[in-house]
Amino acid sequence: MIAKIEMQLNCDTVNYRNSSNLQGVIMENIDTGYADFLHQQGLNPYSQYVHKKEGKTYWCICTLDNESYEQIITRFMNSKFDGFAIKNNSEIIKIVKKSLVTRDESELMNQFYNESGQKYYDVEFITPTSFKSNGKYMIYPDLGMIYRSLMKKYSIVSEQNMYDEDTLEQLVNYSNITRYRLQSTLFPLEGVVIPSFKGNISVRIHGSDTMSRYARLLLSFGEYSGVGIKSSIGMGAIKLGRMEG
Amino acid sequence: MIAKIEMQLNCDTVNYRNSSNLQGVIMENIDTGYADFLHQQGLNPYSQYVHKKEGKTYWCICTLDNESYEQIITRFMNSKFDGFAIKNNSEIIKIVKKSLVTRDESELMNQFYNESGQKYYDVEFITPTSFKSNGKYMIYPDLGMIYRSLMKKYSIVSEQNMYDEDTLEQLVNYSNITRYRLQSTLFPLEGVVIPSFKGNISVRIHGSDTMSRYARLLLSFGEYSGVGIKSSIGMGAIKLGRMEG
Repeated sequence: MIAKIEMQLNCDTVNYRNSSNLQGVIMENIDTGYADFLHQQGLNPYSQYVHKKEGKTYWCICTLDNESYEQIITRFMNSKFDGFAIKNNSEIIKIVKKSLVTRDESELMNQFYNESGQKYYDVEFITPTSFKSNGKYMIYPDLGMIYRSLMKKYSIVSEQNMYDEDTLEQLVNYSNITRYRLQSTLFPLEGVVIPSFKGNISVRIHGSDTMSRYARLLLSFGEYSGVGIKSSIGMGAIKLGRMEG
Repeated sequence: MIAKIEMQLNCDTVNYRNSSNLQGVIMENIDTGYADFLHQQGLNPYSQYVHKKEGKTYWCICTLDNESYEQIITRFMNSKFDGFAIKNNSEIIKIVKKSLVTRDESELMNQFYNESGQKYYDVEFITPTSFKSNGKYMIYPDLGMIYRSLMKKYSIVSEQNMYDEDTLEQLVNYSNITRYRLQSTLFPLEGVVIPSFKGNISVRIHGSDTMSRYARLLLSFGEYSGVGIKSSIGMGAIKLGRMEG
């Protein structure tokens, strides 16, 4: 099961710039043993980010498997969890509203098998997004890196390894970015900044319908996993937008 | 000599979308023989574009050598030229104000020899810009394509061929885009549209000072020549912005 809890906060001082502190709030509220387990993972089975919608601030935590759901989301869904403070700030941030979405992995697969693919997928990078390649940060969206990252993250929840070079190559060959509105930005982290980008792209799939369904599967999953580096501290949150037929 | 005439228009229906019609206005106002000569050129010794500044509309024509200055700019500087109509529109567009800037090529070279280079150059793509590579339009700024285009255009005014693969490679290796705000756009041309982009980039030069001076030379020249394809019909106008020391 994959899940997303969205918590509306009564506070507008929390935003992507201090969202790395929210990882601390998660760690404080889960079992120490599970927190230790998470610290040892290369790819985390959860992601979290802060975003604004119609002037309101929301903190989202997504979990990618059953264990992380039990260990993380159930703690935050508990009615006793109604506020928190972040590091170096005594102010208590209240939670005004909580909503939870859960999806079985099979739902994504059902969509893959039963719903035709679209020609275009619009992707919004809601929080600063970055990839690392040869020790350098990539501040442009690159479809190869996006698909690779999503395949690797999907492997966490899937029975099998979803990362496959040939499929990746085909996806890249049959996709291109036809429209975009993007800007570089910086994500602050412990005194340094990570070069990144945010904005919108429109991806055109000109391969087979199967190719388009697979792209949709990865991008839909990406709404939970995030894309690229440091999605556990607030980077790389994406939203799949309006899709044209 | 390179030159730029900026004409303020009393009209806000002229913009980059119909700037290709302004090429017609140029052709109507110059000698037929020279117009024929221009039609045979691969790279034109002039560029033109429309832009807005503080709510006012300006039409700029730039010439890159003495002949094009005599044949084009002197016609437009003539006080008799005080308005024009564009194709399929009977409305007479009045010219409210004209200003002329001329620069000797040696001025650019003097700056190259006598002024230290900067670490950053901010470039604004004021009108839709595009490059063509392997039959495809490139809708991202690519430093290799930008420098190559400017070298080729500079060769029109220079005594020697400024296009040199090794220098180009070095320029590309020692430059990178560190910040940007860009969006894809479409430039309309005779019923079709050309995929393109506009916005701002900041280029960091991390090579030698000579490298930085050379990048500045090319980019400064680019304010007159434009960059990329179809700068004679309004595409690829650039502005070199604030430069950090």
